[in-house]
Amino acid sequence: MSPTPARIIAVDTHDIRFPTSRELDGSDAMNPDPDYSAAYVVLRTDAADGHEGHGFAFTIGRGNEVQVAAIDALRGHLIGRSADDLCADPSLLNRDLIGDSQLRWLGPEKGVMHMAIGAVVNAVWDLAAKRAGLPLWRLLAEADPAWLVRQIDFRYLTDALTPEEALTLLRRGREGAEERTARLLERGYPAYTTSPGWLGYDDEKLTRLAARAVADGFRQIKLKVGADLDDDIRRCRVARSVIGPDVRMAVDANQRWDVDEAIRWTKALAEFDPYWIEEPTSPDDILGHAAVRRAVAPVKVATGEHVHNRIVFKQLLQAGALDVVQIDAARVGGVPENLAILLLAAKFGVPVCPHAGGVGLCELVQHLSMFDYVALSGTTEDRVIEYVDHLHDHFLDPVVIHEAHYRAPTAPGFSAAMRPESLARFTYPGGAFWAADLDERKKGQAV
Amino acid sequence: MSPTPARIIAVDTHDIRFPTSRELDGSDAMNPDPDYSAAYVVLRTDAADGHEGHGFAFTIGRGNEVQVAAIDALRGHLIGRSADDLCADPSLLNRDLIGDSQLRWLGPEKGVMHMAIGAVVNAVWDLAAKRAGLPLWRLLAEADPAWLVRQIDFRYLTDALTPEEALTLLRRGREGAEERTARLLERGYPAYTTSPGWLGYDDEKLTRLAARAVADGFRQIKLKVGADLDDDIRRCRVARSVIGPDVRMAVDANQRWDVDEAIRWTKALAEFDPYWIEEPTSPDDILGHAAVRRAVAPVKVATGEHVHNRIVFKQLLQAGALDVVQIDAARVGGVPENLAILLLAAKFGVPVCPHAGGVGLCELVQHLSMFDYVALSGTTEDRVIEYVDHLHDHFLDPVVIHEAHYRAPTAPGFSAAMRPESLARFTYPGGAFWAADLDERKKGQAV
Repeated sequence: MSPTPARIIAVDTHDIRFPTSRELDGSDAMNPDPDYSAAYVVLRTDAADGHEGHGFAFTIGRGNEVQVAAIDALRGHLIGRSADDLCADPSLLNRDLIGDSQLRWLGPEKGVMHMAIGAVVNAVWDLAAKRAGLPLWRLLAEADPAWLVRQIDFRYLTDALTPEEALTLLRRGREGAEERTARLLERGYPAYTTSPGWLGYDDEKLTRLAARAVADGFRQIKLKVGADLDDDIRRCRVARSVIGPDVRMAVDANQRWDVDEAIRWTKALAEFDPYWIEEPTSPDDILGHAAVRRAVAPVKVATGEHVHNRIVFKQLLQAGALDVVQIDAARVGGVPENLAILLLAAKFGVPVCPHAGGVGLCELVQHLSMFDYVALSGTTEDRVIEYVDHLHDHFLDPVVIHEAHYRAPTAPGFSAAMRPESLARFTYPGGAFWAADLDERKKGQAV
Repeated sequence: MSPTPARIIAVDTHDIRFPTSRELDGSDAMNPDPDYSAAYVVLRTDAADGHEGHGFAFTIGRGNEVQVAAIDALRGHLIGRSADDLCADPSLLNRDLIGDSQLRWLGPEKGVMHMAIGAVVNAVWDLAAKRAGLPLWRLLAEADPAWLVRQIDFRYLTDALTPEEALTLLRRGREGAEERTARLLERGYPAYTTSPGWLGYDDEKLTRLAARAVADGFRQIKLKVGADLDDDIRRCRVARSVIGPDVRMAVDANQRWDVDEAIRWTKALAEFDPYWIEEPTSPDDILGHAAVRRAVAPVKVATGEHVHNRIVFKQLLQAGALDVVQIDAARVGGVPENLAILLLAAKFGVPVCPHAGGVGLCELVQHLSMFDYVALSGTTEDRVIEYVDHLHDHFLDPVVIHEAHYRAPTAPGFSAAMRPESLARFTYPGGAFWAADLDERKKGQAV
């Protein structure tokens, strides 16, 4: 903490968009042409240490300006607040944001407004970790369990998880934490890769990238499916023949199907031994996921990147709808809500394999899985963090993959900060890239 | 339809806020100080008939600007489109809006972005009804059932309701429709009133307004509960003693409780014979509502004003979690999604009693219940539309309550249009009311 009282003096927002749709990177059955984007926020204080808190919501292009407007709507809750108090107890802000009854109407706790809260809350945790001089995973893993429990909003959870149960889980998780920290720093956390399997890639590119993934040491890859069954059968056959029988192959439908269709389609792919079927149907369909899981076993069911809050995760677990919980660092209300989801998963004994990719999602979510390993679940068995090799060079502290493992970050903070030159270049529509692009289009129209 | 081709040439948006928090109108356990607001949209065409399509999302104050920004983000899907085509088949627009993969990421189908889609879709239906010269309820009730089915997006519903089942329900609903239309035009549709029961009102005001409600012929009133149990017991006792044993008294917790607390609290109020407990817990908690319903019967369980889409309603019905479906005209994706929800309710045999109040929600939702009566459920038994006597004078075609019934609207359209002078006066922050308000505050600070 800084010697003189520090206050938050600015909440700067940025509309950042990358033209990823031009390469079909990130293409899947629901999202054919995403422009990976971030509604990005920087909290500045008047402290002499110069630390800033960075956070963002991830979007895929159009509407990123709406997401920025939602973060702007939170400014009044931040300006002038004591950064010392907030970093000592970030739950103060969380309660104010979630509890703002007028803003709550716009959710509640879902969609644009909730992602905005997540961005701002994550920015405060980034600031807190920087001021503590620790990477976020380590700040969480070393925090007093009772303090961690106080960070969490248990509203609507107590029929499945009480604060007392959470405290017990966190205290138990602390046993052997030092050894696991040492192992994590040495080995890293296992990753799987989605890079070979985008729907827009042809078989040659799929073959080449799948072979490279295995050569790089990955033990799991993922393929996008759901647009055309014959194509999916062909692509699964190609991928399986390249990676052999022992490397896991997950498939991901990105919500494309109704329940009955999900069951039929997954069964049609079963001969290729898919490890999990991801997002077989709407992320809102708890009972639907449960029906799919009953029907497609032993293929596992995974979801979470679009699950909008802890209340839906609670029910997915209560209903026995999931084999794999896929948290996303920038969809729910930030670190404390993800702590609640990690605790729910631990209570129900379901492994957490985060969603990542996009812009900076790998950078953020690695911290949450590493905390989970060191101080909660205590294992990496059947646990992998998604890895996609896009856009990391725009970050100041990008993820490092070594032998198919995420290296544990050692720099203080949440690894959320983008390079200033990237922020400037890809600001929409005024940044250098988009201004030039607009110019070209105008010329194209003139010709 | 107009004789020459008509196109949509403008999508005008307005940030409209009413200072309702100053009277504690609308106060409940979760929303102590709402400023009832509308993110309002007007579609203009180049047709000679001069008809406009009006729609809005309802919010309660802060964040209304975010909701407006979300509507603005849809403009590109509207400008230049054929109004003739859209009015002949509004589903064309619906599919484009819901199917915009980049915008979809901001939901999917929930929160700010989905309410924006609902506002725009409802505006198109308003325009279509005006051009057809019919009030919306009548346009729907007289439409070809097969055409109506084509308006509906059955994605994620087919495990509970197929297009074929919907068609059967609509065809059966058409039997006796003319008689019911005549009866509706004569008698209207039954209403209940929430006006006596706001949490911010003292016992004297509760007594006075409850007595007036009974004198006015209402057979059901509603009380807000959930802030303090002793207060609730006292207020329920007061209200029950005023209205007598035969008038129904619903209670509404506005999501205040966890599951176990909802059960305890509702049981503590059971001696006053509440008809339903509304929003006992999170609107996302399907399994929680089912648990509450099992525990508190014969008190009924009602929810829906914050249920964000048809997929959650589907599950609430599949799980046996509801006795009463409370649709809201401006929360989900507009008329077609509410048609889906009405059909789901009909399939499961659960009555629909809409949420209303706010700004213009009574004006809109009456059309949906009247369609339901005339051409789907065929009955008003155990069915009532909420009525709150706020802010109707700002509408060009306000609801008319006569002997505790909504009179059937006869003017063409969806009754969505606000008076131009109200739009001008309550535009935030530049309209005359808010400009003067800001001026006063500045003077107050100067003194």
